[in-house]
Amino acid sequence: MADQKKMVEAITSMDEDFAKWYTDIVKKADLADYSSVRGCMVIRPYGYAIWENIQHIMDGMFKDTGHENVYMPMFIPESLLQKEKDHVEGFAPEVAWVTHGGEEKLTERMCVRPTSETLFCEHYAHVINSYRDLPKLYNQWCSVVRWEKTTRPFLRTCEFLWQEGHTMHETAQEAIDETERMLNVYAQFCEQTLAIPVVKGQKTKKEQFAGAQATYTIEAMMHDGKALQSGTSHYFGDGFSKAFDITFQGRDNKPQYPHQTSWGTSTRLIGAIIMTHGDDNGLVLPPAIAPIQVIVVPIAQHKEGVLEKAGEITKQLKTFCRAKMDDSDNSAGWKFAEYEMKGVPLRLEIGPRDMEAGQCVLVRRDNREKIVVKLDELETKVPELLKAVHDGLYEKALKNRENRTWTAKNMEEAKKIAENNNGFIKSMWCGDLECELRMKEELGLSSRCMPMEQEHLGDTCVCCGKPASKSIIWGKAY
Amino acid sequence: MADQKKMVEAITSMDEDFAKWYTDIVKKADLADYSSVRGCMVIRPYGYAIWENIQHIMDGMFKDTGHENVYMPMFIPESLLQKEKDHVEGFAPEVAWVTHGGEEKLTERMCVRPTSETLFCEHYAHVINSYRDLPKLYNQWCSVVRWEKTTRPFLRTCEFLWQEGHTMHETAQEAIDETERMLNVYAQFCEQTLAIPVVKGQKTKKEQFAGAQATYTIEAMMHDGKALQSGTSHYFGDGFSKAFDITFQGRDNKPQYPHQTSWGTSTRLIGAIIMTHGDDNGLVLPPAIAPIQVIVVPIAQHKEGVLEKAGEITKQLKTFCRAKMDDSDNSAGWKFAEYEMKGVPLRLEIGPRDMEAGQCVLVRRDNREKIVVKLDELETKVPELLKAVHDGLYEKALKNRENRTWTAKNMEEAKKIAENNNGFIKSMWCGDLECELRMKEELGLSSRCMPMEQEHLGDTCVCCGKPASKSIIWGKAY
Repeated sequence: MADQKKMVEAITSMDEDFAKWYTDIVKKADLADYSSVRGCMVIRPYGYAIWENIQHIMDGMFKDTGHENVYMPMFIPESLLQKEKDHVEGFAPEVAWVTHGGEEKLTERMCVRPTSETLFCEHYAHVINSYRDLPKLYNQWCSVVRWEKTTRPFLRTCEFLWQEGHTMHETAQEAIDETERMLNVYAQFCEQTLAIPVVKGQKTKKEQFAGAQATYTIEAMMHDGKALQSGTSHYFGDGFSKAFDITFQGRDNKPQYPHQTSWGTSTRLIGAIIMTHGDDNGLVLPPAIAPIQVIVVPIAQHKEGVLEKAGEITKQLKTFCRAKMDDSDNSAGWKFAEYEMKGVPLRLEIGPRDMEAGQCVLVRRDNREKIVVKLDELETKVPELLKAVHDGLYEKALKNRENRTWTAKNMEEAKKIAENNNGFIKSMWCGDLECELRMKEELGLSSRCMPMEQEHLGDTCVCCGKPASKSIIWGKAY
Repeated sequence: MADQKKMVEAITSMDEDFAKWYTDIVKKADLADYSSVRGCMVIRPYGYAIWENIQHIMDGMFKDTGHENVYMPMFIPESLLQKEKDHVEGFAPEVAWVTHGGEEKLTERMCVRPTSETLFCEHYAHVINSYRDLPKLYNQWCSVVRWEKTTRPFLRTCEFLWQEGHTMHETAQEAIDETERMLNVYAQFCEQTLAIPVVKGQKTKKEQFAGAQATYTIEAMMHDGKALQSGTSHYFGDGFSKAFDITFQGRDNKPQYPHQTSWGTSTRLIGAIIMTHGDDNGLVLPPAIAPIQVIVVPIAQHKEGVLEKAGEITKQLKTFCRAKMDDSDNSAGWKFAEYEMKGVPLRLEIGPRDMEAGQCVLVRRDNREKIVVKLDELETKVPELLKAVHDGLYEKALKNRENRTWTAKNMEEAKKIAENNNGFIKSMWCGDLECELRMKEELGLSSRCMPMEQEHLGDTCVCCGKPASKSIIWGKAY
C-alpha cells in the first residue's frame, strides 16, 4: 500500500519545472539514488539495466569496426598527467588527488583518471614498434572522475561510467578517418538505437578537448530546446606521441610518430533518453534498450484461467523480446501507472473477454494508442509495434528539433530568437573567438558545432558582420 | 621477423622457477603489461577478452539466481567507512586516500573503495522499508583498490577488477542459504567453466572477512602445490544493519534488522587459470573462456586453394565456436608456437593433402594429441574435442591435487610433509587460534578452510593433541 500511495502522487509537469520533472523521473522510475559521496550517484537496477543494454549494443558496434577492449589503471601519477601541456592544463583543475596509500604519504601524488590518454600513451610506447603493429584500436569501459561543482544525476556527476576509445595510426589521414568513423558510429547508435536525432559537427577551437587538434561532436536537442553534447571524437595528430616518445619503424625503415584519436560516450546518454522522450507520465524508453519491452498485465486476474493465459503469453513473448508479467495483487490501474512511469514501450492487457475472442490489447507508451491483436499474431505484431514506437519517438524528437531551430543573420535577429526561445540558432560565423565570446556574453549562447553538413545561410558573420564562410549552430546547453 | 625472434625464445620452465614462468606467460601470451602506476597493471586485449568471457558466463549465473546489477560510487567518505568497527579495522590500513578535489582540500577525506559493504548499506537504508522489499539481491562489476606492498599481475595488484554481490534478507536462515548458494555458484563456475577443481569450506575466525560472522571460500590448488583462494562468500548477520540503522517493517508489523551477505571473485581467476593449466609451452585455456577456441593454420598456404579452403572452414567453425584463421606469412611452425603460447585449446591444420582426402588435422593443446577429422564431421567433432580438452584439464588438475594432498595426525607428521612438499595437509583441529598460529610459525602453513565435506581423520588436534572434532586443510598460499 505504501508503494501504491507513492505512485498516485503525480510527478512535476515538465512545463511547470523541467529540472524538477527530470529529477522526479530519475527518482520515481528507480533509475538512480543519491549518496553521501559528494556529486556521485547510485545507479539502481533499472537504470543499470538500461546502461547494460547500451553497453551491449555499442560494444558490438566497436567490435564490428575492429576494436578490442582493454583495461588501464584508474590512477595517473602527476608526472604522467603533466607530459602533454594542453592536456594537463585542461584537466588538472578538476581531478581528485590521491595522496596517501594506507598510512604512508605517497612520494608522488596520483589523480583518479578524468580520461586516459596519458595511460594509453604510456602503454602504446611499450607495444608499438613497427608499422606492422598499427593500427592499435583499443577501447575501455570504466568510470572516471571529474570534480564538478554542480551535479545532476546522469547529466553531470563527479564520477561517471563511460567508454573511451583510444587508437593509434600509421598516418594522419587514417587517424582522421577513424575520428569520423567513430563519430558516425555514435550518430548511428543515437538515431537507430536510442531514437535520438543528432547533428554531427566539429567543435570550435574554444570548445575543443584539451590537447586535441580537432574535436567532433554529436549534439542532441532535449525536449526543452536545450542542447546536450552526447558523444565526442577527437583527433590528436602526433602531439601526445611526441610528448610520450612513441615511435614506430615506418615502411621506409625510418622512425615515425603515430597519429592518435580518442572518443567517448557516457551514462549521460541516459539523461538524453529521459529529456528527449520522457513525458508527464514518466520515462519513455526506446525499445532497443528497454529492460522490459512488453509488460503483461492480466485484467481481472482472479477470474479463472486469466493468470495461466497471461503466463503462457509472457512465456511466448520471451522467446523473441524482453517481456515480464506483473501478477502482483496491485490493481490494474496501479500497474498501468507504474510501467508508464518506467517507460515500458508496450503494455499487453489480457482479460476474460479477450481470452474468449482469442485476442489481447496492446498499448503503445509513446502515444497511448490501443491495438487489438489476435493472440496467434503476437510474434509478428509485437516486433512491428516495437519498431513503430521507435519510429514514433524518433519522429517526435526530430519534429521538436525542427520546430525549435531558427536561422539568424545578425545579432538583432539572434537576440530576438534567444530571448523568446530555447533551441538551435543557425548562423554564419567568421571563426573569431571574440564573436564566440560575445554570443555567450550577450545572448547566453554557446557554440554547439559547425555541422558536417554545411549550409550557406548568408555571407557575413552573425556577430561582427564581417565575411564568413562557416555555418555554425548556437544554443543553451546542459 | 622481430616477432618471430621473440617467440623462438622459450619461456622459463616451471620446474626451474615457477614465479618467473608465471610472469613470462603473463608477458608472452600478451595478457598484461606493467605500468608506471605503483602495483597496477594494464590488462591487454587478449587478457581482457578472457575476463569478458568470465564476466559473461558468471553474470548469467547471477541473473539466473535472481540477482540484479547496480553501480555504487567508487569513493567512501571516512566517516562511512568507520561505521562498522571490525570492517574499518580490517581495511583502513590498506586503502588509498583522496584528500583533494581539484585545487581544494576536502573537508573529509575519502578512500577509493576496497570493497563496498558500507556503500551498499547506506543505499539499503534508503530503499528497504518493508519485508516486501526483501530480499535485495544486488551485484556490482567494478574495480577496487587495496594498497598491497608486494604485487604480482592478476594474483595481487593494488587495483583489481572484480564483482561483489551484496544481498539483504528477511531472516538469518535466508542469508545463510544465500551465502552457501553463491559459494556453490562459484564452485560450479570454477569446475564447469574454468576446469579448476576446488574445495569448498569455511574460513577460520582468524581468516574471516573484516566484519563478517562467517566466511566461506573455494580453495584451488595450483600446479606447484600452493593454494589459491579463488572466491569468498560472507555471512554478516545483522551487524552492518545495526551500524547503518537499516530496518524494515516485519510481517508482525514490528521493525526488524535485515540479514546480510556479500561474495566476490576477481581477475585473480586469470592467475588461477595460468597456474592450474599452464605448461612449459605457455598458457592453456579452458575452452569455455578461450577468446579463440580453434585456430586454423593453413599448411603450405601458397599452394592453390589452401587459403580458400581454410577460410571456408573458418567461416563454418564460426557458426558454432570462436574460431580464427592465421593467414599471415609467418611459418606454420611459428604459428604453432604462438597459439600454444596463447593457450588456444584446438589447432586445425589444413594442407593440400588433407584437402584431397576431405579431412583436416586437429591438435589438442592440453596433450598435443592429433586427431584426423573428416571435414563434413567438424560440427560434431569440434565441440566433442573442446569438451575433451575441458575434461582433460579438469582431470589433470584433480590428479595433481590428489597427488599433493596428505593427512597428518600430529606435528611431527605435518612437519615432515611440509618440509618436503607443497600441497594440502588435512588434519583435525581443536579450533584454537593458538594452534593455528603455531602451524604458521613452525611449519609456514596457513589454514585454507574447514571443508564443507568434513572427514573424520582422528580424534585429536594435529597441533596440541587435545580432542578435536573439526577437519581442516593447511597449505602455503598465494
